[in-house]
Amino acid sequence: MKKLVLVRHGESVWNKENRFTGWTDVDLSERGVNEAHEAGKVLRENGFTFSIAYTSYLKRAIKTLNYILEEMDQMWIPVMKSWRLNEKHYGNLQGMNKAETAAQYGDEQVHIWRRSYDVPPAPLAADDPRNPRLDPRYIAIGADAPLTESLKETVGRMVPYWESTIRESLKKEDQVLVAAHGNSLRAVIKVLKKISDEDIVSLNLPTGIPYVFEFDDQLNLLKDYFLGDPEVIKKLMEEVANQGKAKK
Amino acid sequence: MKKLVLVRHGESVWNKENRFTGWTDVDLSERGVNEAHEAGKVLRENGFTFSIAYTSYLKRAIKTLNYILEEMDQMWIPVMKSWRLNEKHYGNLQGMNKAETAAQYGDEQVHIWRRSYDVPPAPLAADDPRNPRLDPRYIAIGADAPLTESLKETVGRMVPYWESTIRESLKKEDQVLVAAHGNSLRAVIKVLKKISDEDIVSLNLPTGIPYVFEFDDQLNLLKDYFLGDPEVIKKLMEEVANQGKAKK
Repeated sequence: MKKLVLVRHGESVWNKENRFTGWTDVDLSERGVNEAHEAGKVLRENGFTFSIAYTSYLKRAIKTLNYILEEMDQMWIPVMKSWRLNEKHYGNLQGMNKAETAAQYGDEQVHIWRRSYDVPPAPLAADDPRNPRLDPRYIAIGADAPLTESLKETVGRMVPYWESTIRESLKKEDQVLVAAHGNSLRAVIKVLKKISDEDIVSLNLPTGIPYVFEFDDQLNLLKDYFLGDPEVIKKLMEEVANQGKAKK
Repeated sequence: MKKLVLVRHGESVWNKENRFTGWTDVDLSERGVNEAHEAGKVLRENGFTFSIAYTSYLKRAIKTLNYILEEMDQMWIPVMKSWRLNEKHYGNLQGMNKAETAAQYGDEQVHIWRRSYDVPPAPLAADDPRNPRLDPRYIAIGADAPLTESLKETVGRMVPYWESTIRESLKKEDQVLVAAHGNSLRAVIKVLKKISDEDIVSLNLPTGIPYVFEFDDQLNLLKDYFLGDPEVIKKLMEEVANQGKAKK
């Protein structure tokens, strides 16, 4: 039996401030660091041993992965990083908090951005210092670097990486780990569970809780479940849902 | 101009206890963590930006690299790990301290192991729990996993990796970082500076001090130097020399 484990990074320092993060490379909060260590302990206690791990170009996901592997005594395994696992790009909203966003764009517009699958926030201007095309780490990807994204566009750039790389390594290895972000993981889950465009926007992943997918050798999905205390997980998922998407 | 930077991992928890470490996967001490952060700061302050980094399968080197990249805000670059960058394998001495070793093998024998280029310590027995062939992380390398090594043998397994991989990436990239161990780095330096078998055993690298090699585009070595306060570096190198090789 093969296992894929998805972990959404722990709380970041902007979660508390209720600001849109997206591709902004903010660090984990102290709570986020603890969540990552906890995820590693749970995986170790449940006997997981990974052959390879994947993460994004953003430190909140990379550090979550590092802390997990440290707890599992698996720091030596190969770790592959890709911008395609980055969070959804939040365009001009990146750095703004909910109140600022409502004041600038109006409540109705913010509601549309939060709830729709295919309406992206206003894009960054080309000369905006937040433009990823000006960041050395994204120079190699050129015009693939987005100025904003809808969830549909995040799914669109994530799926090719899933198909060409992560799924291919699951064919060869028994256990694969992915530490990434709310929306890039939604893309993976959408494909794995064949979730509709309408339903995927209301899937709220708890932070730092390992989400396990079990497959047979032909990669047919057998079952999926969260690792941990069901009461704690329920509480965390409600918390994420109540925060609303303004806190991604 | 191209730059290769070598960093020997910071102090480990066995350094203090004066025990032979080798392939034993011991953690950094608090001082070792600080040394790694300091190395990252010095590299950042001197304007380094790496395209790729290499490290061993051992957490004291991996964590040193992670802390350096964190200080440099370069956690997103590719990191390649290889057992060929591991410390010299110390055979049956691994885990023993200087006093235990002298009591078991005699002062003269210990002196030979410490000072010679090609005499390995007594090998591990095949059924010894310290045998790396019993460790999942080395299963893929099979009989390449050593039961003991002389420095000559460490050089012998390091040089092919240098030639096939690290040197190849230096042809493509401007700046390459390697975080590893006293003896695997001696192997690299031996090749780069054409140091004799006799002289390489007395080269003592300070821990956590970036050692910079500058090359022209044809990879001819132009110069090499340590980054940091020359007085501090001198003191650290003396400290390492005085510890003797029993503390590797």
